[in-house]
Formats: sequence, structure tokens, C-alpha cells
Amino acid sequence: MVSKEMLQLGTNPSAIRDLFEYGNKRKAEIGAENVFDFSIGNPSVPAPDCVKEAVQELLEGDAVALHSYTSAVGDMALRQKLADYVNDTQGTTLSAGNFYITVGAAASLTITLKALAEPEDEFIVFAPFFPEYRVFVEMTGSRLVVVQCDTKDFQIDLDAFEKAVTPNTKGVIVNSPNNPTGVVITADCIEQMCTILRNKQSEYGKEIFLIADEPYRELVYDDVNVPYLMNYYDNTIVCYSYSKSLSLPGERIGYIAVSDKAKDWKLVYASVCGAGRALGYVCAPSLFQKVISRCIGQTSDVNIYKKNRDLLYQALTEYGYRCIKPDGAFYLFVEALEEDAAAFAEKAKEYELLLVASDSFGTPGFVRISYCVSTEQIEAALPAFQKLAEAYHE
Amino acid sequence: MVSKEMLQLGTNPSAIRDLFEYGNKRKAEIGAENVFDFSIGNPSVPAPDCVKEAVQELLEGDAVALHSYTSAVGDMALRQKLADYVNDTQGTTLSAGNFYITVGAAASLTITLKALAEPEDEFIVFAPFFPEYRVFVEMTGSRLVVVQCDTKDFQIDLDAFEKAVTPNTKGVIVNSPNNPTGVVITADCIEQMCTILRNKQSEYGKEIFLIADEPYRELVYDDVNVPYLMNYYDNTIVCYSYSKSLSLPGERIGYIAVSDKAKDWKLVYASVCGAGRALGYVCAPSLFQKVISRCIGQTSDVNIYKKNRDLLYQALTEYGYRCIKPDGAFYLFVEALEEDAAAFAEKAKEYELLLVASDSFGTPGFVRISYCVSTEQIEAALPAFQKLAEAYHE
Repeated sequence: MVSKEMLQLGTNPSAIRDLFEYGNKRKAEIGAENVFDFSIGNPSVPAPDCVKEAVQELLEGDAVALHSYTSAVGDMALRQKLADYVNDTQGTTLSAGNFYITVGAAASLTITLKALAEPEDEFIVFAPFFPEYRVFVEMTGSRLVVVQCDTKDFQIDLDAFEKAVTPNTKGVIVNSPNNPTGVVITADCIEQMCTILRNKQSEYGKEIFLIADEPYRELVYDDVNVPYLMNYYDNTIVCYSYSKSLSLPGERIGYIAVSDKAKDWKLVYASVCGAGRALGYVCAPSLFQKVISRCIGQTSDVNIYKKNRDLLYQALTEYGYRCIKPDGAFYLFVEALEEDAAAFAEKAKEYELLLVASDSFGTPGFVRISYCVSTEQIEAALPAFQKLAEAYHE
Repeated sequence: MVSKEMLQLGTNPSAIRDLFEYGNKRKAEIGAENVFDFSIGNPSVPAPDCVKEAVQELLEGDAVALHSYTSAVGDMALRQKLADYVNDTQGTTLSAGNFYITVGAAASLTITLKALAEPEDEFIVFAPFFPEYRVFVEMTGSRLVVVQCDTKDFQIDLDAFEKAVTPNTKGVIVNSPNNPTGVVITADCIEQMCTILRNKQSEYGKEIFLIADEPYRELVYDDVNVPYLMNYYDNTIVCYSYSKSLSLPGERIGYIAVSDKAKDWKLVYASVCGAGRALGYVCAPSLFQKVISRCIGQTSDVNIYKKNRDLLYQALTEYGYRCIKPDGAFYLFVEALEEDAAAFAEKAKEYELLLVASDSFGTPGFVRISYCVSTEQIEAALPAFQKLAEAYHE
């Protein structure tokens, strides 16, 4: 009667959403202050003042112009400003015509994948990875190929990667800073990956695209540098979103940038336009296109996330947990204290700690802790983390 | 290298978009006041005051909550208010759980079609029809079946419709008030169409869905009644958008309502959720979800459109043009003065009149005139319309 695949997707929500809903129920039962919800990546730091100021100013202008359809590719002034900004900060040579404004990161990815995918195509992801990648890739009829990272440092396992590239590989999704590990892939690792890709392109006589999914680009600590993939590899498409950097996850605004050095980039861009049309994306929200135009280069206060990271990392390692200290994003990826991460996450619930088991990220044996919460919540949760660890050491 | 279909869609923009772009170029050449652009359905009447007031009030609240992800199905309070409003005005028995908030009308349609479509499915549309229906239907792998309306009154040709329903028919898209004719389908015609559908459901032992695409519901003149399809047929899914009624086309906000009388409606709704997820729609823009919550039942000032319609209809018929007087939307569908509508639209350009040839709407021999423009533009364009008619009568 209905599409089997869509029904399946609709009746099996993601593990993250599931835990989030459990948290809401539990909070209603015992009070929000007694549930330590680390399940979801919803920014806890408010949008910077420029957002509110921009909306207020724009409201004083012509309402028809403010809320009109923009061009399907996005407002021309915004795209020009984005090109100027990326050129200034990354040394690229992009123009407005390289940018396509989207309804957030998920739209950036679904549109890009749909634009590229032909029958039999494969897209490579590095585990652990954002679980919706599987949905987005498989939705195009393509196959998701998973390459495990080295769990010591969560950099790319280059040997495993090289073996995974086949004549059917159409693209590789790189997410750095990473969800769920918070790790930034080093320039050295990126360079080696790109060398492999260039060799494979020559060997197979075809283009392979690098898809840089980087909503966490600005959320980095201790002046860590996040390599800009267009500067390492020509066939690069950047998928960006303002959900995290400007704390606007609900407003659904981001962009796709097709490198001007990609082979036949104007065709790739045209295909992006076609995919946006086919998926029903008429244009990105017009008010927020104009808001972004006025807030380019600004971010929410990332010092709050850094403080949370430091507090949580220090306490957890003190209690005996093991995890890599992340350079960015707002996640800690912590080793479960028993083999089965799902069982460990269930045990954590007894202490009212909501942690996402890593299985749905494609790497067993860990839990993801989203520390985009109030510092008070972390302080209040520390005794629970300590008791949880003690329960395993008895 | 890229998807052939997406490249094709991206390099062949719609006829409407094409003319719109030509108009922008022409305005730059000879001045906007000298080009009579009737190409696009972008509301010319500003959003009602409640929109600006709602945004201003909401900005004073908590920024984190304001811009957060909502549930994928939409804000609970909004969905409850929508259920209450539709129940009050249409006598239905819907609850919040029947509503799924979307990123506008195109998203409502692509999600609904994706939720329903199985291999071999067919969807019926009535010509003339909004050209993107073809893109949205074919994108799901289904076949678009076109049934011509009677061009005397643009009601449904019921005999032709009955013949077009097959065991593969999964759904029927009804768009009333209609783009491009402005016609409202009568209750009598709807009733007969629904009787045919019910008989076909029994005959084939399967469900056939009615998809009511109705962004123009509130844009009707002279107190015309627009039948609410859920009250005529159980397997109904309403696709709605606030683009036209609140003049917010760029903000991308609308909804899907699955009738609580549809067979296994909870499965249909779950499939809608799955399709939204697969297409990359994380949630509808959060600020505008809250704005809509405060503006339900309000509309832009439709009297301005009525005045435009009356002025244009009266003048054009006086000049010898033939067209049905529309009850709603903001379009006139006028017979071309030569057989080839595209040639007629080209001729109109000589008088700086931008009219969309009807071929892309699936019905030859007409042009669509969007009268959602300033009344001054219509007044200024009348001599050009008169000269164009005279050019054919010489």
C-alpha cells in the first residue's frame, strides 16, 4: 500500500532519536534536573547577537522582498559574500557560481549524493560515521562502503582505504571535525588519502569526488587547523551548514560549494541544481539567507564548549574511562566499560546518564557523549559517571 | 560522471523560470517599469502584520529554544493548533498526530509521493497542471498519467478520468484552486470523481490515494467554497503551504495532513516520516513553525488580488481575448491568439508582455498570466495587451 522502504525508515527511528525521546519521557517522570541527557547534538550556546540584530533590521524593510522566493541556487549577494569569505580565509578562487544555498547539512548531502549517483556507484565513509549517511547514500540506489578508522587516534586507516576504492567508487565522505569522535583529520593524513585517490582516478580513468561534510569546521579548540579539502584535492564538494557554528539547527540553512578546480565543475554544479529540484528544495529559507549574509565569519561562543570538553575529559579519565581528547565538535567518544556498548548504555541509564551506544555509528564498543549541554549539567552528572565506573570495577 | 537525469533537470530549467530570467535581463536593459512581467507566482501582497509581530515577540524569548531542532514531524503545539483549526473550519476529526510540518508545498508533494510510491505505480494529474508534478512523480520511479480537463470550464473530464484509472494507479493529484487556470473544482465534480475512485478501489481490491495540493485554498473570491477533500474521500492526504496564503514563499513552510479515515493511516503517516528522512528534511524551519502557530487562520489581503483579477479579466475580454473567469488563485489562463502558444508568447514579448505558454502545463493553446503583481503594472500593461490583440485582428 505504501513504500516498504519508507515505512521501514519511518518506523525505525535512529538510535539517537530513540534515546532523545526516552530522555523526554524520563524527564517528565523524575524532573529534567535529574536526567543527564547527553544524547543529541543540539547546540546549547545561543546564536551570536548578530543573528537577532539582523532579523530585527530585516523586518523593517520590504516584507514582500524579505519573504520572496530567491533564485533556486540562493540569493546572489549571499553567494558572492560566501565566495569572498572562503577565498579570503582559505586562499581559494571561488565565485558566486560555485555556491548553492541549501536547507541545512542533510539537504547539502542528499542533493550532492543525488547529483552524483549513477547505477552501481559506491560511496565510502569512515567509521565511526553519522548514521544518516547510510540512509542518504542508499536512498540514491548506491552502496555504502564502510572503512574502519584506527581506534587509537581515529585518523583514516590508509591501507584499508586504498583497498576499499574500486572502479565503482563515485565519492568519499570526509567529516572533520568528526561526529561522533570530535577528531580533526590531520593535514598529513588528508594528503596521503588524496594521493591514493588521485592514483585511483588515473588507474580507473574516472573522477572520484571528495565530499567534505563540515558543519563543525569552526568548533575547534586550542587553535587546531582544519585542512580545507579543496586545497588538497580538485574534485572536492564542500557541504556546509550553519546549524552548529551559528547555533541555528532548526532554521535549516547551509550550502554546497563545488570546487572551481573540479573536472567539468559547471556540469557538477548543474547536476546539483537538478537534484535540488528533484528532491523538492525550491530555495533555502529566504529570511535566513539574508541573516547569514550579515553574519558571515561570526560564530557562537565556542569557549563554552571548550570548557565543557575540558571538564568532562579530565573527570572521566580520572574515573578510569578511556577516550581520545577531541580537537573539535562537541562530542566525546568513550570506550564502553563492557564489550557490548548497547548493554553499557543501558546500564548508564540506571544512573540517569543518557549516552548513545556506538553501534549505529558503525564502530562497536564505544558511547558518544554530546557535551553541547550546560556546564551545570556536566557538573551535576559527574558523580553519576563516577558511580557507573565503580560499578564495573567492583 | 554525474547523474544523467539530474544533469538533465539542472540544465533544462522550467519554462516559467526561463521566462522569469529573461524578464530580469530585459528589465536591466530597458527599465523595470517598461517590462510587464506576468511570469511568476510570487505573491505581491505583503504578509499580514501578525507575521512581523510574531517574529518580533519570538526574538525576545530564549534564542536556543527558538532556533533548536524541532521534532522531525514538527512542533507539537503547532500540530495541535492545526488540527483544531482544520476541525473547526472543515468539521474533520484530526489530531496532532495527523500533521507533519514541511519545508513548503514542493516538500509536501515530494515526501507524500515518495512515501506512497512502489515499483510500477502511476499517479494521475489533470491537465493543465503545475509542471513540476512531472519531476516529482518521475523522481520516485512512478509514471505520470495525464488526463485532460474540458477546456470549456476546466472541470475534470470524468469519462476520461475513469478510463485512466488502472490497477497500477496509486494516487490522484487534485489542485484546486488551480494553477494555472484559477478554477475551483465544484463539489459536484469532486463527488463524482470520488465515486469513481471508490468503485475502482473495490474493483481492484487496493487503496488509491487522493493527494490534495492546495496552497491556494484561501485565495478565492466572491465567497466561493473550496470542497475539503477529506470530507469526500477517506484515503486523502492534504498537501498545504503558507507560501501564498501568508505571502511567505521564500520561507518554505507548509504541512502534510493524512486523513484519520484513510486505511491504516498510521502506516501512511509513518511512511511520510520515512520519506522526509530519506529526502534530507530534518525539520521545517523552527522560527517560522512558531510564527505559523501564532498566525493560523490569517491571510494576506486577498482583495488586492480580486481587484487585479477583475480589472484584467474585464479589459482582456473587451479586447477580444477569451478566458474563463477564475474563482481563485492569482492566474488567468487565456486562449492564445494563434494555434502555437509558444509563438504567441514570443509575439507578446515584442510588446514587453511576459506570458507563460501553456505547453509545459500539458495543455496546448493558452498562456498563463500571473496577476500577483501591482495593480499599477496591470494598468500600465493594458495598452500592450490591446495592441497585441489588434496585431492578430488586422
